[in-house]
Amino acid sequence: MISPEENKVGFIGLGVMGKSMATHILNAGFPVVVYTRTKEKAESLVQLGAKWAESPMEVAAQANIIISMVGYPSDVREVYLGDKGIIANGQPHSYLIDMTTSTPTLAKEIYDEAKRKEMYALDAPVSGGDRGAREATLSIMVGGDQEVFNKMKPIFDLIGSTIVYQGKAGSGQHTKMCNQITIASNMIGVSEAIIYAEKSGLDPETVLQSISTGAAGSWSLSNLAPRMIEGDFEPGFYIKHFLKDMRIALDEARKMEIEMPGLTLAEQLYSDLANVGEENRGTQALYKYMSEKC
Amino acid sequence: MISPEENKVGFIGLGVMGKSMATHILNAGFPVVVYTRTKEKAESLVQLGAKWAESPMEVAAQANIIISMVGYPSDVREVYLGDKGIIANGQPHSYLIDMTTSTPTLAKEIYDEAKRKEMYALDAPVSGGDRGAREATLSIMVGGDQEVFNKMKPIFDLIGSTIVYQGKAGSGQHTKMCNQITIASNMIGVSEAIIYAEKSGLDPETVLQSISTGAAGSWSLSNLAPRMIEGDFEPGFYIKHFLKDMRIALDEARKMEIEMPGLTLAEQLYSDLANVGEENRGTQALYKYMSEKC
Repeated sequence: MISPEENKVGFIGLGVMGKSMATHILNAGFPVVVYTRTKEKAESLVQLGAKWAESPMEVAAQANIIISMVGYPSDVREVYLGDKGIIANGQPHSYLIDMTTSTPTLAKEIYDEAKRKEMYALDAPVSGGDRGAREATLSIMVGGDQEVFNKMKPIFDLIGSTIVYQGKAGSGQHTKMCNQITIASNMIGVSEAIIYAEKSGLDPETVLQSISTGAAGSWSLSNLAPRMIEGDFEPGFYIKHFLKDMRIALDEARKMEIEMPGLTLAEQLYSDLANVGEENRGTQALYKYMSEKC
Repeated sequence: MISPEENKVGFIGLGVMGKSMATHILNAGFPVVVYTRTKEKAESLVQLGAKWAESPMEVAAQANIIISMVGYPSDVREVYLGDKGIIANGQPHSYLIDMTTSTPTLAKEIYDEAKRKEMYALDAPVSGGDRGAREATLSIMVGGDQEVFNKMKPIFDLIGSTIVYQGKAGSGQHTKMCNQITIASNMIGVSEAIIYAEKSGLDPETVLQSISTGAAGSWSLSNLAPRMIEGDFEPGFYIKHFLKDMRIALDEARKMEIEMPGLTLAEQLYSDLANVGEENRGTQALYKYMSEKC
């Protein structure tokens, strides 16, 4: 059993997602030690009782369950595999859970390196966004050893509501890629539909009343199309992060020799959008870009 | 008020959709006169009390509310604008409701021709498929004059559950195009995700558990991805009909000078699929085609 009495949780990366997730674990009574690049982001957690550490190495020295939620695969590599990283400096029999959306290949590499040091690694990326993190309703997709997943399940239960073991190391990341691949093409279709509605003289909000609950229905149509119509391009999910994810998926697809015409198109359109300086917008800004091109 | 005592409904086109829709109207007590190209398809309705007519002209001579649910825009043109069609042979003050998915341009032409003969035309395509037709839960998207829509609302209520007036003549068809545009790109994304899941060694059904209720969620992912996985390519919605719809949308988009890269890609992929003899499969067969190309 994983109890607050016998375990100490380390949390690395306190962005919008990580902060909410760490808070849930702290509120469940676990001692939590935190590290994040920008120290101010840890303040609210420290006030709630978390302990500050000066580096991933220091987190690893104190905690036996270490969770990371950082930005890019390069950050994940540094945190786990760097000289001052977790695997080089952590304790044997520690549990290492990377929840960043990162590459399946790197997840496998971390798993293998951890094993050599008698540590247990899981790749466990999430979907559900800042709201899912805040409300502890994330979908958590897990790769690694089944018995390690079983052991860590009580921790996942604190931050998510759909928690599924997907298979060997890397499978969590591969599953997240399936999620992003599905979203990518759908964003194009939703953007095109709203543009078509406007150009043909329809009221797009009235159109949504007709189409959003039937065969055209999707999360993106219900949640992002209204923001497109209102001209609200604030990030729920950043274009720069979506691009990172699509590039990982395309890279993996190339290795497997899968053609992905829809994903390829989406990556091109979003790259164009980033190139005109929109990378810090939400993904629904695709509509704006495609609309202005018309 | 539209009552069964003072109105007679004509129904033209008794395919899978039309037959269910006409049955609901008949069951509500309206006298119904029917015509369809293949007479046997009318048998069950005639047994329920519908009257058989030998042509659209004969339907028009008897009914004052005429509904059509035929195949292609060329069929719609013949039924309404042909020498032996409804407008040339119908009664003034009749209501003409085309529920076929057809072109916005033709809808406008029928509206104008009808008006010249003191008839009232609506374009009212539907979504919801054979099941929506059977259960009277169709989404009906209506273009034409608002007061004509208001008058016909009780008829729509017999066959649908989401009934929305979208604007002037052609607006129903334009709204249906928005529906199909949204679906088109999403079908690519869903197919690619399932292919990626399989090639990367995941169990695609387990992947669906993780991704189908979050931001990647859609009607297609919940309803068609499981059929892809099972290898069930029976038509819910025929590829040949989807191609017709996408070509109408592309044609309209060209007129409006809108670029539609996602829709263009989907039309190409489905055209390839039709060219290898798969046009009578369901739209989920896109997965099969894309998978075999890998």
